[in-house]
Amino acid sequence: MTYERDNIKELKAYVPGEQPDSGEFIKLNTNENPYPPAPEVQKTLAEFDANNLRRYPQPTSSKFREIAADLHKVGSENIIATRGGDELIRLAITTFVDPGKTVAMTEPTYSLYLTIARIQNCEILQVKLEDDWSLPENFADECNRNAARLTMVVNPHAPSGALLTQETIESLCNSIDGVLLVDEAYVDFIDPKDKYNAIPLIEKYDNLLILRTLSKGYSLAGLRFGYGIGHNDLVNPMLEKTRDSYNLDGISQKIAESAIKNQSYAQDNWDKVREQRQRLEGELSDLGLSVFPSQTNFLLVSVPEKISLNAPGLYQKLKEKGILVRYFNEPGLKDKLRISIGTEIENTSLIETLKLLLGK
Amino acid sequence: MTYERDNIKELKAYVPGEQPDSGEFIKLNTNENPYPPAPEVQKTLAEFDANNLRRYPQPTSSKFREIAADLHKVGSENIIATRGGDELIRLAITTFVDPGKTVAMTEPTYSLYLTIARIQNCEILQVKLEDDWSLPENFADECNRNAARLTMVVNPHAPSGALLTQETIESLCNSIDGVLLVDEAYVDFIDPKDKYNAIPLIEKYDNLLILRTLSKGYSLAGLRFGYGIGHNDLVNPMLEKTRDSYNLDGISQKIAESAIKNQSYAQDNWDKVREQRQRLEGELSDLGLSVFPSQTNFLLVSVPEKISLNAPGLYQKLKEKGILVRYFNEPGLKDKLRISIGTEIENTSLIETLKLLLGK
Repeated sequence: MTYERDNIKELKAYVPGEQPDSGEFIKLNTNENPYPPAPEVQKTLAEFDANNLRRYPQPTSSKFREIAADLHKVGSENIIATRGGDELIRLAITTFVDPGKTVAMTEPTYSLYLTIARIQNCEILQVKLEDDWSLPENFADECNRNAARLTMVVNPHAPSGALLTQETIESLCNSIDGVLLVDEAYVDFIDPKDKYNAIPLIEKYDNLLILRTLSKGYSLAGLRFGYGIGHNDLVNPMLEKTRDSYNLDGISQKIAESAIKNQSYAQDNWDKVREQRQRLEGELSDLGLSVFPSQTNFLLVSVPEKISLNAPGLYQKLKEKGILVRYFNEPGLKDKLRISIGTEIENTSLIETLKLLLGK
Repeated sequence: MTYERDNIKELKAYVPGEQPDSGEFIKLNTNENPYPPAPEVQKTLAEFDANNLRRYPQPTSSKFREIAADLHKVGSENIIATRGGDELIRLAITTFVDPGKTVAMTEPTYSLYLTIARIQNCEILQVKLEDDWSLPENFADECNRNAARLTMVVNPHAPSGALLTQETIESLCNSIDGVLLVDEAYVDFIDPKDKYNAIPLIEKYDNLLILRTLSKGYSLAGLRFGYGIGHNDLVNPMLEKTRDSYNLDGISQKIAESAIKNQSYAQDNWDKVREQRQRLEGELSDLGLSVFPSQTNFLLVSVPEKISLNAPGLYQKLKEKGILVRYFNEPGLKDKLRISIGTEIENTSLIETLKLLLGK
């Protein structure tokens, strides 16, 4: 006999990118940072007294929240620390969207949004992006017409890497009736000359919730640590009511504190990723692939028809050569590959292997 | 403007026990294990290579699940690893109970059940326990009459410490129509001569889900690691669909593996807790307090009227003397204190302080 709710029975599981057990792959498939976390992280680990684990952790990650608040020039009451960005997405849906009500998002988007919305048994509105990955002009109108309680936008966008400007975010805050979650998982890789910073908008708009994660920018995907930034009226019910009472363990809190304290180490890595992004963009184009301009730590690459292999074929051949990239068998993405930016050496291997496979 | 759902707006937050920042208290208020975790835990921490944190963790904690499966003589498909027992409670409600449907539990019980059921906007059925903390005979009938999709029972019971026998659990599996979650957070402290072991029942009953945690028995409350054991049809949808995709970070998985591998270290601690429990039970009774027999790492103590201080008064005076215990201002508990079993020295301090306060 099955005891599952009907919506869970029908649910297809979210499929994360491959995480092979062996270290033999060059792994450019899940947008991990190619550089190790700050040396202070290893020190924090080494110095952690295991006896402290006997006790429950500080329940609200208060020290981390203070450090993050200082960094972003907001109050710690504007910050909630979460078990990866994923927990914030779940909390936003649990807190703001009744079952049966609508969650809005773009198409394509981070596919976990759909899974979590379906678990809550919400209606889902997906608004198709334009061919150049920009938001269609009627995006906010569509969200409002469907009475979306929560609208989720990844910025910079995954899987394209395109950036909505701060002005566009502000105009969405203004025009969207419900809560707007801006998922800034990749924000650290934006070109600084774009001067993108949506955080000051939380003072002016009580419907803006910004998602940040330590997975990408701080090389800590394995730690599961993220946070939300927003008006206290948005943050407070998640922090005090819907969050699991001890959502973050004692070790993770300490490591996260030391990682965001070491801004200059992290920023150096962001610079290196941007440099390698520029390099790869050029070299992949030279191979006849068409590359979308990206503000993230990955590139979305179209495989033109004139090339001897199609996208899934190229994915498979690269895998056989020990290089993992990501293929999405989804509308609008069937002729594309998403390639995470690796280290200089990894990127060279990728280019050399592609030359071989494409007969260049 | 508030964007909260109505049920969240009305929700009162779960209040965990006090976690003072300073180490100056003798902390007997949140049922933490008084002994440190296994020495191998410190070793695991020291040997952990922070560079591994760059990558996403193994998503389903597969190695931990194999070790736990061996330990309990079940298959690893019968195990789900969770962020503390709390996550399993949430997943059980999310997976098996539609909003508006009923979650059943005893009164009193672990108060987090109520909070999580309210977040899902479920109806709540609380069935009052008998004066001796046993289940009323009509418990299963009441659950079925209210069409409870999920019934949650803490065994041994919190906050009384009373144990339902394995036979009672089996008869509940038989008679309850929905899913039965048996929360065995305190199972490790049961007297071995009682030969309680509900795990083999999962083969026979597809509605039984057992909750375990490393917080108490393995001295790892600060780690947030628990697990569920049940029929694959119960475990699978939580493991594959409703669980956050990377719910457990890489460090926690390693530490949990090493903690449950070191069974003999943990079992020695359980013996010590049982010895101290017996001692405290005697000494508290000698002071004129009335102590319920307990199979856990805490004692529920009634403060009789003839004693100069009432329960909240005694709680307060103990706090002033640097000893934290737990007072629940709830029906049936207003004249009682819940006292966690400490180390031999901590328990001696407690008894000496009580003698002073009660003028003995």
